[in-house]
Amino acid sequence: MSLAKRRGFVFPGSEIYGGLANSWDYGPLGAQLKLNIKNLWWKRFVENRDDIVGIDTALIMNPKVWEASGHVATFSDPLVECKKCHSRYRADTLPGFSVVKMTNPKTGGFGWELSSGPDARCPNCGAKGVDSFTEPKAFNMMLKTFIGPAEETANIAYFRPETAQGMFVDYKLVADSMRLTPPFGIAQMGKAFRNEITPGNFIFRTREFEQMEIEYFIPVPKTDEDWQAVFEQWRIAMHEWMHDIGLPANHIHELEVPKDELAHYSKRTIDFEYDFPFGRKELYGLAYRTDFDLTNHSKASGQKLVARDPQTNEEYIPHCIEPTWGVDRTFLAVLCAAYHEDEEKKRVWLSLPPRLAPYKAAIFPLLANKPELIEKAKGIYSALQKDFTVAWDDRGNIGKRYFSQDEIGTPYCITVDFQTLEDNTVTVRDRDSATQERMSVDKLAEFLREKVNG
Amino acid sequence: MSLAKRRGFVFPGSEIYGGLANSWDYGPLGAQLKLNIKNLWWKRFVENRDDIVGIDTALIMNPKVWEASGHVATFSDPLVECKKCHSRYRADTLPGFSVVKMTNPKTGGFGWELSSGPDARCPNCGAKGVDSFTEPKAFNMMLKTFIGPAEETANIAYFRPETAQGMFVDYKLVADSMRLTPPFGIAQMGKAFRNEITPGNFIFRTREFEQMEIEYFIPVPKTDEDWQAVFEQWRIAMHEWMHDIGLPANHIHELEVPKDELAHYSKRTIDFEYDFPFGRKELYGLAYRTDFDLTNHSKASGQKLVARDPQTNEEYIPHCIEPTWGVDRTFLAVLCAAYHEDEEKKRVWLSLPPRLAPYKAAIFPLLANKPELIEKAKGIYSALQKDFTVAWDDRGNIGKRYFSQDEIGTPYCITVDFQTLEDNTVTVRDRDSATQERMSVDKLAEFLREKVNG
Repeated sequence: MSLAKRRGFVFPGSEIYGGLANSWDYGPLGAQLKLNIKNLWWKRFVENRDDIVGIDTALIMNPKVWEASGHVATFSDPLVECKKCHSRYRADTLPGFSVVKMTNPKTGGFGWELSSGPDARCPNCGAKGVDSFTEPKAFNMMLKTFIGPAEETANIAYFRPETAQGMFVDYKLVADSMRLTPPFGIAQMGKAFRNEITPGNFIFRTREFEQMEIEYFIPVPKTDEDWQAVFEQWRIAMHEWMHDIGLPANHIHELEVPKDELAHYSKRTIDFEYDFPFGRKELYGLAYRTDFDLTNHSKASGQKLVARDPQTNEEYIPHCIEPTWGVDRTFLAVLCAAYHEDEEKKRVWLSLPPRLAPYKAAIFPLLANKPELIEKAKGIYSALQKDFTVAWDDRGNIGKRYFSQDEIGTPYCITVDFQTLEDNTVTVRDRDSATQERMSVDKLAEFLREKVNG
Repeated sequence: MSLAKRRGFVFPGSEIYGGLANSWDYGPLGAQLKLNIKNLWWKRFVENRDDIVGIDTALIMNPKVWEASGHVATFSDPLVECKKCHSRYRADTLPGFSVVKMTNPKTGGFGWELSSGPDARCPNCGAKGVDSFTEPKAFNMMLKTFIGPAEETANIAYFRPETAQGMFVDYKLVADSMRLTPPFGIAQMGKAFRNEITPGNFIFRTREFEQMEIEYFIPVPKTDEDWQAVFEQWRIAMHEWMHDIGLPANHIHELEVPKDELAHYSKRTIDFEYDFPFGRKELYGLAYRTDFDLTNHSKASGQKLVARDPQTNEEYIPHCIEPTWGVDRTFLAVLCAAYHEDEEKKRVWLSLPPRLAPYKAAIFPLLANKPELIEKAKGIYSALQKDFTVAWDDRGNIGKRYFSQDEIGTPYCITVDFQTLEDNTVTVRDRDSATQERMSVDKLAEFLREKVNG
């Protein structure tokens, strides 16, 4: 976190005003790293695939969407209030207390029951036991707003708590305009919002976050093997993605969500967990959502969200497999995986994959007071800048400049020295091995291109 | 609009639920076009420039930001209500009525006075004249929400109405972490929100929209020429951008905002207006904001948002020049400029610049029932797909496929025919001229690269 702030990756949000809980800004290097992650994902899963198209839907949707999806009714945390000091808590995270979710057999709605150990107290005023608290109340986690000219109930709207519903609601418009029949996927990257009460572990859990999500539609499975085969393809695709962005395999764990804990719409869900410095936490998810969503939206909207079997010409509601990636969690995992310290050599470096690194290379003139070195180095810098993000540094000695670039994960440092003026070669120093090789200036672009795309 | 919906550029938001006013979704081709616009802007103004860095700040900032910026007090429209039928209107857009903004000399606050012609009436119920309406009330255009576990005044927050304040609030963190001294710029792309009451002209005016914005910080100008020179550089840079994205020069107009209409923080503002099909409307803006923002935030936060003069070592508050681009308006202008009809030939095409076009090329096998043509064409398609977004079509006759690609602005159609199997050449058909040339398959990638990057 200290490095992230000092070197311009992540800043506390609104810091000059004392910040804002669970709010973070991406600084210059963070914004570039995040953009590189998103563009790589989009290239891989949208541009390079024949069977997936991307969309970009509004953050505020018609409130009926969230009624049909179940978010208005059930996307809630249990909130309790201390009767004595009026502090509010999420009951399921209150130390010493526990909470059980229960369905009301009469209404079909649900509620919670709070219980506690003998000495459990309000963390603020010390009031003791269950009786000191109000009954758990459903606290909807969607961010509410008012649109139009008055704060009336009719004008309540919500900021989307997930990107997924955009793909379901636009399913038919996409399928028709692009002439697609299952199997095909709709992808989206973008912000989503949850009114988080609990603290967040840096950028791990925030009020606003970005998702990269695909709804992959398939024909109605005739057997379990039909959907399992697609599920398996996505499981592998997600592992390949994690490998390619530099996450070590031994930090990744698949959690098969037990049948009795599955969300009501899911027949199978895998959580991909990652060993963060603060513990093993959910990174990505992969769920088989059956035809739950399209069926619900068909009913609620009265529109036929269907596909047509090319053989039988019969209409059917497609099933859906959903791989989900958190952008900010990806960012955090990539940063954690890349962080290296060598205590002996007092060296800190980020081993970011070249394709993700904010700068692909840094260009140094060996000495800052030699105009002929500066001029030569500037020429190389300008030429590379057309195709790559590159840094320039002519301050301090070369060792300090290496140190500075290592900290921000620049994979290659290119130094222009006196030999360059004679034979047009430079030293190219590798971040991870800290070794140097001499290379012709003419080969630099090709070298970098291979490393960045390879 | 019809083409935009039919071919997957822009869909009405939440359409299956009857839509949501002023809300639009970008479909597959629209999402790609919008992403191409944003990535081109980022490459040009952030990655390829030494003096500008990008950031990506939270959409919800500490509410104190909007107090300091003046948005809580003054970012309002005048709202009136008909006393008879209780319809609500923005007073300044009510036909037959006019409204004058007035400052209260006692309080320093401001209000509006409504007046009307003799026959002005409520558009809904026909109630006549000024007396039929309530006095104009300030209606704040920021979207409000509640964060934390209770809807109390203490927890009110706003979704940002502009991206600019992120750059001012993070000014010092950026300057320090990146070791920058003016002149330098901070850039940001991202969503902003305004509770628009008025109708929007398709995606021209929407509740949520994306901005691309730069705050360019300069030393305190010693003379007017000092800031005017930078202002002029940006004026030219914006014209170059508009040229490069295909906007015809004769549709672009500079509106020099008169001195008495300038925003209180601005010493000079140019609006770049564009001739849309629905009229001449604001596209971009360029403003000299002086040191207004950093001074205000310094005062309100108690933090020193300053730079240090490298010669005198004295601290100063930098001045700022702000070029602003609307993403959605850019998208709309690009689409309008690209739209061409040839009534005689019944041909419609989008002359999108190749770098912006959703697909750079489409690959066709001449006949869909010849496996050897299909196989050869698929090979070319797969090879090009690694570096370019490409389309595949083997339906109908070649003429219909050309027609279909013309409509979505694909600049090149590559057809694999029987001669291809003999000499490894294909026809490459140009969208704008509708002419064909024969080209070796080996040269396709280089050809496209030149067209896309050139």
